[in-house]
Amino acid sequence: MRYLLASRNAKKLAELRRLAEGRFEVVGLDDLPPYEEAPETGLTFADNALLKAREGVRFTGIPTIADDSGIAVDALNGMPGVFSARWSGRHGDDEANNRLLLAQVGDVPDEHLGAAFVCAVALVRPDGSEEVVHGEMRGRLIRTPRGDGGFGYDPLFVPEGETRTSAELSPAEKDAISHRGKAFRALIQKLG
Amino acid sequence: MRYLLASRNAKKLAELRRLAEGRFEVVGLDDLPPYEEAPETGLTFADNALLKAREGVRFTGIPTIADDSGIAVDALNGMPGVFSARWSGRHGDDEANNRLLLAQVGDVPDEHLGAAFVCAVALVRPDGSEEVVHGEMRGRLIRTPRGDGGFGYDPLFVPEGETRTSAELSPAEKDAISHRGKAFRALIQKLG
Repeated sequence: MRYLLASRNAKKLAELRRLAEGRFEVVGLDDLPPYEEAPETGLTFADNALLKAREGVRFTGIPTIADDSGIAVDALNGMPGVFSARWSGRHGDDEANNRLLLAQVGDVPDEHLGAAFVCAVALVRPDGSEEVVHGEMRGRLIRTPRGDGGFGYDPLFVPEGETRTSAELSPAEKDAISHRGKAFRALIQKLG
Repeated sequence: MRYLLASRNAKKLAELRRLAEGRFEVVGLDDLPPYEEAPETGLTFADNALLKAREGVRFTGIPTIADDSGIAVDALNGMPGVFSARWSGRHGDDEANNRLLLAQVGDVPDEHLGAAFVCAVALVRPDGSEEVVHGEMRGRLIRTPRGDGGFGYDPLFVPEGETRTSAELSPAEKDAISHRGKAFRALIQKLG
């Protein structure tokens, strides 16, 4: 069985491939002829994941998995949330996004730096059937980035029970506890 | 009777002076010897207003009024909220804050651009008594700034029942409907 992961993020694709190994094949958007991708206009992770997965099926006919994820900071009422990747206004500019988030919480006392990474994963099949699963990883923000692994806000986030940031975990350690790992596993389990 | 408005914002001071005219005198922080102001670490408008008003009384002995206000955008779960003045990371840089907010809602459909200006005003007296009142002005964001009046996010905000932005209203028109005008009037009424 072959699924499309509607993403151009090589690290996300590698993450799903590791989890799906021996079960199914995963191709990414860069493995297929390009189609015009609509902007992510949803206001929830699930909305955006479904939007991208439906689009993938429509253009490719391949059952499509899509995720939307981000960091929900308690002191910011759960924001950046669905805006995580474009928080600074420049989509995918991790450094600018991290810098902005740190500046915004600059005066927030340490005890209010709780946060969670949240992920919604949608699967849409050519027959129109749809599934959505969620995963969450609780933790807290730190004020100085640490680590070279991961992407996005990983260098600013220490998961509960850890002293290292998400960016200091090995890929396998991260898969085991991450929001996306949890959501991907929940989906794979549903697929049997 | 003389009150301190714990603010260095000349436009805010003028706004309160217009409303208080003939009732009481208002001095601003720039009219007094400087004291060291603590950062606004509260996570609600009321917290920050109280924090600033208590500090004013402590350092000056004058009954102190302080406000905290900001814009609460529906699609951002009520943010920028208490972070409105430092949303871009640079405190008081209206242009950078406006630009960032517009970029963040760039892909948000027009029908989800509802927002409100919210204001909390605190009064703390030397005898330790405290009052907090709130005011709100509902409206919606537009995508291109308009108008030279007001400050902060006024050029991006069209109040309910208006076609002009807050920055296109005259000071008197704005006082009549604004979050801060409502909160200031509620406080003045309490003062008898």
